[in-house]
Amino acid sequence: MRHQILLLSFIFSSAFCFSQTGEEKVVEDFEPSVVNQPGKEFPKVNSEGRVRVQIEAPEANTVQLDIGGVKYDLQKDDKGVWIGESAPQDEGFHYYQLNIDGASIPDPGSKYYYGAGRWGSGIEIPANDKEIYALNNVPHGTVSENLYFSEITQQWRRNFVYTPPGYFENLDKEYPVLYLQHGSYEDETGWSSQGHANLILDNLIASGDAVPMIIVMDNGYAYRPEDLENTSENRPRSSFENVLIEEVIPQIDHKFRTIADREHRAIAGLSMGASQTMSIIMNNLDHFSYYGGFSGTANFPGDKELDAGTFLNGAFSNAEDVEEKLNVIFLSLGTKEAEVFFKTVNAFRDMLEKQDIEYVLYSSPETGHEWLTWRRSLYQYAQLLFNE
Amino acid sequence: MRHQILLLSFIFSSAFCFSQTGEEKVVEDFEPSVVNQPGKEFPKVNSEGRVRVQIEAPEANTVQLDIGGVKYDLQKDDKGVWIGESAPQDEGFHYYQLNIDGASIPDPGSKYYYGAGRWGSGIEIPANDKEIYALNNVPHGTVSENLYFSEITQQWRRNFVYTPPGYFENLDKEYPVLYLQHGSYEDETGWSSQGHANLILDNLIASGDAVPMIIVMDNGYAYRPEDLENTSENRPRSSFENVLIEEVIPQIDHKFRTIADREHRAIAGLSMGASQTMSIIMNNLDHFSYYGGFSGTANFPGDKELDAGTFLNGAFSNAEDVEEKLNVIFLSLGTKEAEVFFKTVNAFRDMLEKQDIEYVLYSSPETGHEWLTWRRSLYQYAQLLFNE
Repeated sequence: MRHQILLLSFIFSSAFCFSQTGEEKVVEDFEPSVVNQPGKEFPKVNSEGRVRVQIEAPEANTVQLDIGGVKYDLQKDDKGVWIGESAPQDEGFHYYQLNIDGASIPDPGSKYYYGAGRWGSGIEIPANDKEIYALNNVPHGTVSENLYFSEITQQWRRNFVYTPPGYFENLDKEYPVLYLQHGSYEDETGWSSQGHANLILDNLIASGDAVPMIIVMDNGYAYRPEDLENTSENRPRSSFENVLIEEVIPQIDHKFRTIADREHRAIAGLSMGASQTMSIIMNNLDHFSYYGGFSGTANFPGDKELDAGTFLNGAFSNAEDVEEKLNVIFLSLGTKEAEVFFKTVNAFRDMLEKQDIEYVLYSSPETGHEWLTWRRSLYQYAQLLFNE
Repeated sequence: MRHQILLLSFIFSSAFCFSQTGEEKVVEDFEPSVVNQPGKEFPKVNSEGRVRVQIEAPEANTVQLDIGGVKYDLQKDDKGVWIGESAPQDEGFHYYQLNIDGASIPDPGSKYYYGAGRWGSGIEIPANDKEIYALNNVPHGTVSENLYFSEITQQWRRNFVYTPPGYFENLDKEYPVLYLQHGSYEDETGWSSQGHANLILDNLIASGDAVPMIIVMDNGYAYRPEDLENTSENRPRSSFENVLIEEVIPQIDHKFRTIADREHRAIAGLSMGASQTMSIIMNNLDHFSYYGGFSGTANFPGDKELDAGTFLNGAFSNAEDVEEKLNVIFLSLGTKEAEVFFKTVNAFRDMLEKQDIEYVLYSSPETGHEWLTWRRSLYQYAQLLFNE
């Protein structure tokens, strides 16, 4: 039902924008972005989803706002302050930057997030369903930072662990665990920062729509030193699966009060993380029983028909076995994602359907390959976990 | 002994710099800063403590590095890349920024920290004693983020809580608690980010030089809505003491396995936090028994003689009572701090000495009003806590 409402509101707002295209009229109801630095007035967002930025740069020649793959020229006033706004942006969270005389830099007004391979600016266009990840007056879980030395990568690594409300007080309760991975050029901070995984679960647990669970968010980039030195490969071979199975899971089961069996372990990831975690679960069905692939599958990038006999070494060839081992296969896409993601996921779905393997598909209305798609995907997926 | 070694090495490096002053010769042994963003080559630091930055800004007129209160002009090469370096900086952590054609902006190469009232660039000049806050191969504690709604401020607030190694596994052990506050224009992230409070304690606990303890790091800015609305005051009245005593401590004692009595509670703060926490402890001697004031005291700013009978409502007037209630009064200063800090702390020390009240004074060699002073202060102070 919510999706129908969202869809209607999109049609209405599209028509509204269209009628203004000629004169580019901007609705003057800008408010400071909800992810601004304390006390900062800019950047601002209006009801159309436009982003307005402002920066003092009296001697600059050109200042631009760079968002959604488009650069918008700002105008300088007589005090040397540059100001300007973007076209309407999709609902949700976007990375962006400023450009001053050819230098790409973070906006000094925004908070900073790791994504697109750098710590940089982010902005939030309030979404119709923002309540699902809002900081509400409900009991809150706790996000903890865990440092560990990885023998496999010979480096210090860290993960963030969400423990549900009550974890610190109810010392005899044990919990199931979701291992939740970020996408490419992102890191272990993404899901608990711009992803709001903690708030999404707090809300779902408060309403009784998800069972209390632990969420572990690690870094999907992991390489053995010898693989990093092997320059004959374009990309070094990833050892993330080894780190997760041999190092992270045993540590988590030792440190936290987990229910340490496959029926109480789920895994999911977004984009690159969806691809990684699909390989990991199919190689380790003794460890996990729930899979979530948000905006991706392990056949990325490609629209080639998948042969169940050979894809992932035939992991999906025995449908009965897959259905017995996997309680949920959850796939999702934003309706505005690039074609390659649809082609990839559809090729995987075709294979599942040929094999007569059940799965759940969630479509995030009017979002692209961005965090609102993934917040919504987690919101849907978490409700399916550990209910048996 | 360590201090003597530090002092000698400073004399040597000062002499070395001095001999080069005429020609401004720069030692070409720059290495990427240890707090750079992943994969970023710049900013770099050399053995003299100079900071070299680089940024592509082909159309810019002027680009400067702004660090330590001085702006250094960069030079542009024929590809539009600007490069240049500062004079030698003190050991330790410094906030800095770039300036492009009059715009003050974060360096896209560095990680970002909250300080000086903004999220911005930080850099680390490796210190002689950097081992005290290094990420070593010892058992590590955990830093947790706790969200809470404050009825006093009518806002969501958060604190970070360090729990020592073993906290999550040894479920019948209870711990003493240190409440540790940041300085002005900083926030609750400072001590566990640029302050490395967690690593300092991990190292001290591993070597047996500090007892395992919990550390709570909250935000020292807290105002009732009605006080924020009262525009007749220059600064709104702070309600941090109420938030800490009435809200934070009860929550911490409920959520964490604390030893909830005054003998097992310490408080400390840096700069503004030193001033705040001195008032708080003297108003609440039923709650705390250890005080640490790093680079500040409650009489800041001032060199006026303190009257024990009136200062903080006569809290220090009965020496016997103070000595009975306070196990430790710890004060610290960096030897390069501005005069106002020396005058302030010395006026307070004079009062203590007149009253014949014992205290510990720590001097951080060759550091200013910056984080290396405070890391070292915590390192010293934590060793004095909860030993009785």
